[in-house]
Amino acid sequence: MIRLFLRSTVNSVRKMSTSAAGTEPAPAKVAKAVNAGAKQKKSKKNDLYLLKTPKGTKDWADKDMVLREEIFGTLSKVFKRHGGVTIDTPVFELREFLTGKYGEDSKLIYNLEDQGGELTSLRYDLTVPFARFVATNSIANIKRYHIAKVYRRDQPAMTKGRMREFYQCDFDVAGAYDTMIPDAEVLAVTCEGLLGLGIRDFKIKVNHRKILDGIFQACGVKEEDVRKISSAVDKLDKLPWEAVKKEMTVEKGQLEEVADKIGEFVKVSGSIVQTLDYLRSATLLKDSEAAQQGIKDMESLAEYAEAFSIEGHLSFDLSLARGLDYYTGMIFEAVTAGSAPPTNAEELKKKAQGKEAGKEVEDASEYVGIGSVAAGGRYDNLVGMFSNGKTVPCVGTSFGVERLFSIVKARSAKDWDKLSPTHTDVFIMAFGGGEGWTGFLKERMAVAKKLWTAGVNAEYVYKAKVNPRKQFDAAEKSGAKVAVILGKEEFPAGKVRVKILGRGDDSTEGDLVDADNFVDYVKEQLSSYHEDGVDVVARMVKNL
Amino acid sequence: MIRLFLRSTVNSVRKMSTSAAGTEPAPAKVAKAVNAGAKQKKSKKNDLYLLKTPKGTKDWADKDMVLREEIFGTLSKVFKRHGGVTIDTPVFELREFLTGKYGEDSKLIYNLEDQGGELTSLRYDLTVPFARFVATNSIANIKRYHIAKVYRRDQPAMTKGRMREFYQCDFDVAGAYDTMIPDAEVLAVTCEGLLGLGIRDFKIKVNHRKILDGIFQACGVKEEDVRKISSAVDKLDKLPWEAVKKEMTVEKGQLEEVADKIGEFVKVSGSIVQTLDYLRSATLLKDSEAAQQGIKDMESLAEYAEAFSIEGHLSFDLSLARGLDYYTGMIFEAVTAGSAPPTNAEELKKKAQGKEAGKEVEDASEYVGIGSVAAGGRYDNLVGMFSNGKTVPCVGTSFGVERLFSIVKARSAKDWDKLSPTHTDVFIMAFGGGEGWTGFLKERMAVAKKLWTAGVNAEYVYKAKVNPRKQFDAAEKSGAKVAVILGKEEFPAGKVRVKILGRGDDSTEGDLVDADNFVDYVKEQLSSYHEDGVDVVARMVKNL
Repeated sequence: MIRLFLRSTVNSVRKMSTSAAGTEPAPAKVAKAVNAGAKQKKSKKNDLYLLKTPKGTKDWADKDMVLREEIFGTLSKVFKRHGGVTIDTPVFELREFLTGKYGEDSKLIYNLEDQGGELTSLRYDLTVPFARFVATNSIANIKRYHIAKVYRRDQPAMTKGRMREFYQCDFDVAGAYDTMIPDAEVLAVTCEGLLGLGIRDFKIKVNHRKILDGIFQACGVKEEDVRKISSAVDKLDKLPWEAVKKEMTVEKGQLEEVADKIGEFVKVSGSIVQTLDYLRSATLLKDSEAAQQGIKDMESLAEYAEAFSIEGHLSFDLSLARGLDYYTGMIFEAVTAGSAPPTNAEELKKKAQGKEAGKEVEDASEYVGIGSVAAGGRYDNLVGMFSNGKTVPCVGTSFGVERLFSIVKARSAKDWDKLSPTHTDVFIMAFGGGEGWTGFLKERMAVAKKLWTAGVNAEYVYKAKVNPRKQFDAAEKSGAKVAVILGKEEFPAGKVRVKILGRGDDSTEGDLVDADNFVDYVKEQLSSYHEDGVDVVARMVKNL
Repeated sequence: MIRLFLRSTVNSVRKMSTSAAGTEPAPAKVAKAVNAGAKQKKSKKNDLYLLKTPKGTKDWADKDMVLREEIFGTLSKVFKRHGGVTIDTPVFELREFLTGKYGEDSKLIYNLEDQGGELTSLRYDLTVPFARFVATNSIANIKRYHIAKVYRRDQPAMTKGRMREFYQCDFDVAGAYDTMIPDAEVLAVTCEGLLGLGIRDFKIKVNHRKILDGIFQACGVKEEDVRKISSAVDKLDKLPWEAVKKEMTVEKGQLEEVADKIGEFVKVSGSIVQTLDYLRSATLLKDSEAAQQGIKDMESLAEYAEAFSIEGHLSFDLSLARGLDYYTGMIFEAVTAGSAPPTNAEELKKKAQGKEAGKEVEDASEYVGIGSVAAGGRYDNLVGMFSNGKTVPCVGTSFGVERLFSIVKARSAKDWDKLSPTHTDVFIMAFGGGEGWTGFLKERMAVAKKLWTAGVNAEYVYKAKVNPRKQFDAAEKSGAKVAVILGKEEFPAGKVRVKILGRGDDSTEGDLVDADNFVDYVKEQLSSYHEDGVDVVARMVKNL
């Protein structure tokens, strides 16, 4: 009894989290049942069979999958436009390559069991495998993109979009080139990617590690403390200055005077030109070789950003520090203000409130407006860590595709019903009945075959005999735009009926067409249908 | 010293296995060096750093990646044409879901380390996760396709294409429908997929588990021995009858008389109609309910295959048994005779001989003509194993995409040089020199930006000043079809030069075009270029 009950409640919860639209709030008692089940599981492990995906993972399906493919396709096109090629590395790497690359977060790496042979771990990001790839294959230069899943044994928080298996989407330029040229292009790619996803109200905060390091040192931070002070500064987008200052002085042992000097710098942001003016006039930085090098780089960036007409999206923000250790030059982070809230914000809010009970229920609205949607920077030494010093300088951008997916989906709520999970264009039906009615199954199959051969996506109901209502329902579910109808009298007389679907116009019976050349007629109807601009998913992603 | 030496030799070997064309034979001493290194590794583990992917895995890159994407795209289109939707399940599943599904092969499952929490394993195929998905989400019917990697801790044999991480490409129809209709469509999808990949000389062997079971029982095999006798019969494509008979009698304890009776049946093959005639006249099967049910199914299949015009590809072969336990109805396997050997077979053979020394070197020619290129069947009980009996009948096909990749690649050897790893259309160059020559870097960037905005794939050299030769070399490497040239005198006068590339025609200097509207002109040139039919990768995959 417990077993059956458990399965069905878990199924209900799961169903809610995967079915996209029209989700019902999870009643509290379901959550309780699941918890009770979890306790049961410990005592009667073998008897219970929780039909779920592992913690922190999920199934992707249905309309979500169509939207996701369109988003990935849009970004891939941007990468290809800039000469990008894609690669595919193994999902696990030799463990030794991952250790020592992620600092404290190394504890979140998934290890594969030692079943004899090499020790391996699931990839934690796409950057370290990329550096390994460049080193392994002795590549001197490449512009590569990679859209793939990465793995982190973090405490999952589905409502915040933190998963243990999730996608990353990276574009990186490896190779020794003239200063800041690929850096500028990486920013251009970031802009094009976000604009391609219909995100128009974004800012890219940029900064430079050498300038930051120069500031810290000029303010009196010892070399060995630079990284930890940098990580304190990195919190300024979430914490007020007073809290960060306290971390620097109380926790990280800097003098109040040092912290105050840093405070003066990190509150500066503006256009690249404005912040450069400030930095050039900062007497404290005059003798810092690092800072002066960084300033020179940012001067080049200002020029190139102008050539690419992206300067309007950039903000040179001295408080941007970025967490990862391996950055060596320009760093950046794209944020969207959430200034255009989803049109159905109220509705989503209500749903979210109703959902508190169901723990694993996902809600897109909660991601919107939170954190960065793309980020990256220059890392010149990572490849060298694999190839014993023979390094290849790199710079790259990473799109937060899971977050971007949530933004696009929340924004598309009003069109969600119109989105079809299938790509079916034509549905083939047979109308008839009475004595001697066969259902025209083989005839429908032969008609389908003709359409398939012509490259047309076509379906029919997998039953010998089926009534018109059920066929129309199946056609609607399939998202088909055109029906090809085989009538009991018409078809033997060499005619089929071609009817446009989904226009709420059930009055017409469609056009009677010669069965010999109905394919061309159907294709015409489809092309005129598409001219009307009904590619729902493209409209969603482009935010039209 | 050892460290450096090791790395460089491993790199050489690796490089050979990932760089596609023009591979050099690996000298024996490289293999020895690598072996020596492996021994060293045990004793001085921390000092050595083998820059490789884990055993049985590899990096995909460059032209291979372009070809692979075209193949996956071609198959995806076929699946969508039949109403297929794609899903994405986690790369690991709860371990309990995988155990007990793969018989002896369960020992090849990759487990994730127990780091606290649930026990999980990497997926072994896409079928069991699909069944779990259908059960988890309480799906009544779906046509789903899934192209993704699966994991098996097998002894890798790269020369035979046996890897530990490899792709599967599955299309399955789940749902309760009228008998054999989805089965026939799955065979139609298999035909369309292979034809879409330019494979024309294939046969699909079909059989039916119920007929096989009926035969075995009618011949005197006890119910509990049926599966193991079935697995002996499954070897008939590799072993002669005498060897299989010996396995049945000596190893598996059947009477000689029983084996001989089976032998009469399993040598029968022909068109569906022919084999059906034989079966209908077999008095031994008259009383076998299972066999008669199977015969009825195959009669339906014969009709539907005719409606789909695929009967010419089908061969009803009573020796086909298929290894997996979970099949319950029709089973099939598509084989290609290798009757069209690659045009460069001799060359590939020579290469293969030269490569014996380098263990991990891959050679496509060795896969060609070996084994099946697609296979599948009906499995009506698998979903029920997850959902406590509430089953959803399924039938599906799985393409051997790694093998198909090798076939297409081997076949495309003569065009391989023409294939570009990038999708770049336009290369922007600056010609000049002498006093006051800036290199027009910002100008090239601005021109690139205009092209990108118009959706044109464009690159330029990431250097401030670069000579024409280097720009042409980079353009050639990028595969660009058109050059936009900014001349020292012409550009300030408002003109750019547009030159078609790659036609071995260096004499012309291209057309002088107004810098204000060069984008339209470039697009015209590109569309005329494409009309010439130079989409190399599509031609390769379609086998034109």
